Amino acid sequence: MTTKRKVEVFSAGCPACTDVETLVKSLACPSCEVDMLDMRDIAVAQRAKTLGVRSVPAVAIDGRLADCCAGRGIDEASLRAAGLGQP
Amino acid sequence: MTTKRKVEVFSAGCPACTDVETLVKSLACPSCEVDMLDMRDIAVAQRAKTLGVRSVPAVAIDGRLADCCAGRGIDEASLRAAGLGQP
Repeated sequence: MTTKRKVEVFSAGCPACTDVETLVKSLACPSCEVDMLDMRDIAVAQRAKTLGVRSVPAVAIDGRLADCCAGRGIDEASLRAAGLGQP
Repeated sequence: MTTKRKVEVFSAGCPACTDVETLVKSLACPSCEVDMLDMRDIAVAQRAKTLGVRSVPAVAIDGRLADCCAGRGIDEASLRAAGLGQP
């Protein structure tokens, strides 16, 4: 019995996230087991943190973040460079 | 009268977002006018779309996305490369 590919979609229920839920559903095949996970659930948020999720929507496949979601997030240097906190 | 710097924080209320709300508040100065915007509000989601927001949290300063948030989002090619939809 072949094991299915585990697809975790981390979402917070906003339009940016629901667009991705639709995209993933449209791309998934019978070998894909897709889980839509709500980041406002603390257990989901903890799982996301262990995978390195820093923004949503995010997609992990077999426990690994897809490249488009990996290493992405807000960083202080970029915010300062954009002017935040400059009197 | 100097105009304040407009700081828009797009959030969907998940832990990844609330961490950034805290970061922005800690970096903001009296010259910064910070608005926390809930992406589940359709008017906010439309504003975010015009700025090119594709993931949250996202921060725009004076109407321009900070570099760390710009051009970021889920793309079909990365999802396929990660195995999604391969029978």
